[in-house]
Amino acid sequence: MTIILIGATGTIGKHVATALEKDHQIIKVGTKSGDLQVDINNPDSIKAMYEKAGPFDALVCVAGDGHFGPLQTMTDAQFRISINSKLMGQVNLVLIGQHFINPNGSFTLTSGSLGEDPVVLGASLSTVNSAIDGFVRGASIELKNGIRINSIGPDVVEESPAYFPFFHGRIPVTMHRVTQAYIKSVLGAQTGRSYKVLG
Amino acid sequence: MTIILIGATGTIGKHVATALEKDHQIIKVGTKSGDLQVDINNPDSIKAMYEKAGPFDALVCVAGDGHFGPLQTMTDAQFRISINSKLMGQVNLVLIGQHFINPNGSFTLTSGSLGEDPVVLGASLSTVNSAIDGFVRGASIELKNGIRINSIGPDVVEESPAYFPFFHGRIPVTMHRVTQAYIKSVLGAQTGRSYKVLG
Repeated sequence: MTIILIGATGTIGKHVATALEKDHQIIKVGTKSGDLQVDINNPDSIKAMYEKAGPFDALVCVAGDGHFGPLQTMTDAQFRISINSKLMGQVNLVLIGQHFINPNGSFTLTSGSLGEDPVVLGASLSTVNSAIDGFVRGASIELKNGIRINSIGPDVVEESPAYFPFFHGRIPVTMHRVTQAYIKSVLGAQTGRSYKVLG
Repeated sequence: MTIILIGATGTIGKHVATALEKDHQIIKVGTKSGDLQVDINNPDSIKAMYEKAGPFDALVCVAGDGHFGPLQTMTDAQFRISINSKLMGQVNLVLIGQHFINPNGSFTLTSGSLGEDPVVLGASLSTVNSAIDGFVRGASIELKNGIRINSIGPDVVEESPAYFPFFHGRIPVTMHRVTQAYIKSVLGAQTGRSYKVLG
């Protein structure tokens, strides 16, 4: 299977790459590093990335910026950092990618735990994470040719200790548990599902 | 109680107005009609509306455009009709309105059934409806001074027969049932909740 991995050198992405590259060809994509580069905020950049990648069977996105800050001072512009990158970046990977992906392929996006289980400072991420899960449900019933779509919603991960003080009482999830959720989506047969990964 | 009602002349809004105006002062807001006008796509217009409205105890929004169309041909621009109006319009009503609303006031936004229960052509609305419900959960734990926030998620309503062909097998919800959900949010004491209204 040929798998495009967006965010291949990130905290989660490097583990997903290691787990999948034993048995599959991984096209690693980053903003500056990797086999190919993409700016997911820019639909033209996404289209160019797919044209360079060639035929593929799965797209996994573990990339997308979000704004973390107090609701009291949050502006439209700050909120739209999350909207334009983590939400619309991933939506556009699917809207454009549906015309490039092989039949019976799959899209696996990244949402998070904050949609259902919010923390202070996380309002725009609660919004975007829930949005991605809603998009997955909506898109799953319209994708053609057996193409599937799911999202993975990890809680704070063990390799991001800088976030621990903002996630009171949460059990950081192991990278093994997170990686397994991506593998379940890519190699499994379900569609329209959001797998929450909790510690 | 003084209640700002955005979308007061719409299919749902006129019923909410009738139900609430018996016991409360309603400031009816529309794009062109009403006591005040607002373009919810424009944060400056929202701020001007609040400045004209004066002190208030509740904001109810039953407005917001969305794009309804096939996923196969959906563009970033079409998707952003829903993002900019129904999602960011309502988000900005809260981000800006939190600085104008009276203590112990409430925001009641409108999402919909498509977040959890999608239909063909509705992918951008599934996204935005889920996003609004996620925003409500995130914002509810940060709003100060006892201010509450909830969303109402109606299925297709009995007074919108033009949509029935797109909602196979759904029981259209009565306007009474929809109106009661808004009243439950405004006059009740819960926060961070999304009330689904199904037939």
